[in-house]
Amino acid sequence: MTPVERAQMAMVLEVTAYPKPGNVDRCHDYEGTRLEHFLASAIFARPALEKAARGEGGIGEILREAVRLTTVHGGGNTHFGAFILLIPLLRGGDIPGAVRAVQGSTVEDAVTFYQAFSLTKVRMLPGDPLDVSDPHSLEVIRERSMTLLDVMDHSKEHDMVAQEWVNGFPLTRKAAGFLHESGCGREGVVETFLRLLSAETDTFIVKEHGPLVAEEVRKKAAEVLDGRRDLAAFDSECIARGINPGSTADIIIAAIYIALGEGWEWDCSRKV
Amino acid sequence: MTPVERAQMAMVLEVTAYPKPGNVDRCHDYEGTRLEHFLASAIFARPALEKAARGEGGIGEILREAVRLTTVHGGGNTHFGAFILLIPLLRGGDIPGAVRAVQGSTVEDAVTFYQAFSLTKVRMLPGDPLDVSDPHSLEVIRERSMTLLDVMDHSKEHDMVAQEWVNGFPLTRKAAGFLHESGCGREGVVETFLRLLSAETDTFIVKEHGPLVAEEVRKKAAEVLDGRRDLAAFDSECIARGINPGSTADIIIAAIYIALGEGWEWDCSRKV
Repeated sequence: MTPVERAQMAMVLEVTAYPKPGNVDRCHDYEGTRLEHFLASAIFARPALEKAARGEGGIGEILREAVRLTTVHGGGNTHFGAFILLIPLLRGGDIPGAVRAVQGSTVEDAVTFYQAFSLTKVRMLPGDPLDVSDPHSLEVIRERSMTLLDVMDHSKEHDMVAQEWVNGFPLTRKAAGFLHESGCGREGVVETFLRLLSAETDTFIVKEHGPLVAEEVRKKAAEVLDGRRDLAAFDSECIARGINPGSTADIIIAAIYIALGEGWEWDCSRKV
Repeated sequence: MTPVERAQMAMVLEVTAYPKPGNVDRCHDYEGTRLEHFLASAIFARPALEKAARGEGGIGEILREAVRLTTVHGGGNTHFGAFILLIPLLRGGDIPGAVRAVQGSTVEDAVTFYQAFSLTKVRMLPGDPLDVSDPHSLEVIRERSMTLLDVMDHSKEHDMVAQEWVNGFPLTRKAAGFLHESGCGREGVVETFLRLLSAETDTFIVKEHGPLVAEEVRKKAAEVLDGRRDLAAFDSECIARGINPGSTADIIIAAIYIALGEGWEWDCSRKV
């Protein structure tokens, strides 16, 4: 499997893993965003992922291309957070390489990142001076000479994907370890998802529903792991309440990419 | 969407269409063959599909490469029949081009096709002098100077995919028309699948279960379309009996490829 195929497989394996609380999965769509949109993004993103792996172009520019290639459909943003993690991982080859890649990010990367962001409908925090819907943000970035890593540092408090950039991809590393421990295939992905969700508050849920709901979800995920709560019922509850652990999903994708490169087996039927 | 992306999307959209009687779909796996195996094949086949679209190499050789790239997993044969249709369609660009491509097939294409075939576990008819499990078959092909089109002509009575080669892709054309009539997205694919299944006896079912079962499935599909039979119940019955309309699925993939090129919309959320 090439690194780009690993990235595409990571996107496919995350979204088809089932049952998985709250997110689009094999048997659940969201209104307007369907399984097919996620699978299409995994196919359409390939030229941008190839560029990242070949070392062509800046990270911000590649991110903008990945978003441009994958917002052709009507399903809205599917993989923006995942691309933010996958592109430096593809550029660097592994986590230490990705850390070097994000440390080398430039002001130009920050500018193109904002252009990518404005193609999506990802929510920013109200009143943020770097709000992407505010054209003034680009001036602020240039005035302050902020690199893309500086922008991530600015956002890290409220965004676990940004934290990965700033802190050296610790949750990606941790979740890749969970995959190795949890075992092959779909069942391994589901257990890893629950383990990460029970260990870390999902910042996407915080943005959408506030910190109390996010903490409630974290505790309930822990109860599912302990056998004190039914996974299918938890999944139904999350879907009914529109609770979507989207940042956890982004980190799981990055973790699958890493774990596949370390020999984690996506295909249980190949195991002896 | 490039022609190769259309081919990959056709493979993804066919397998995720739901509910679809008998086959692996979004919510059903077969023992040993899972949704992920089909999605992985759509990703891993790309280099072979690119070669077909670029006009590099013979059809038989590309087919062998597609099979080699996609049998890395433990899920068995997923898309052999689909590749037999997609590769000439990619080579020719459209149905008239595919007809020219298959007419230009050579003895060498036939030989490499048999090598591809022997990588799969696809069943041949008992006593066939061109049985792929018999090393003597290759000698027969060379002695008789059979091209790959001649091999398809030999197989056509019992194989609707071979019939497509020999007859100029009539069912691919017909099913692409059904897609345009049935409308966008997953629902359009499901209706097209039922229309083709009710119109044509699936030769894969004939091989596995005999002509009476195949005719029964054809009639029941017609009853589903007429509203006289419940689709979910029919799906469950097919799965319980191990009835898998695999050749119909192959033709649907080719039809989605053609229809996408003619403006059929896979993404209903983009429709105004």
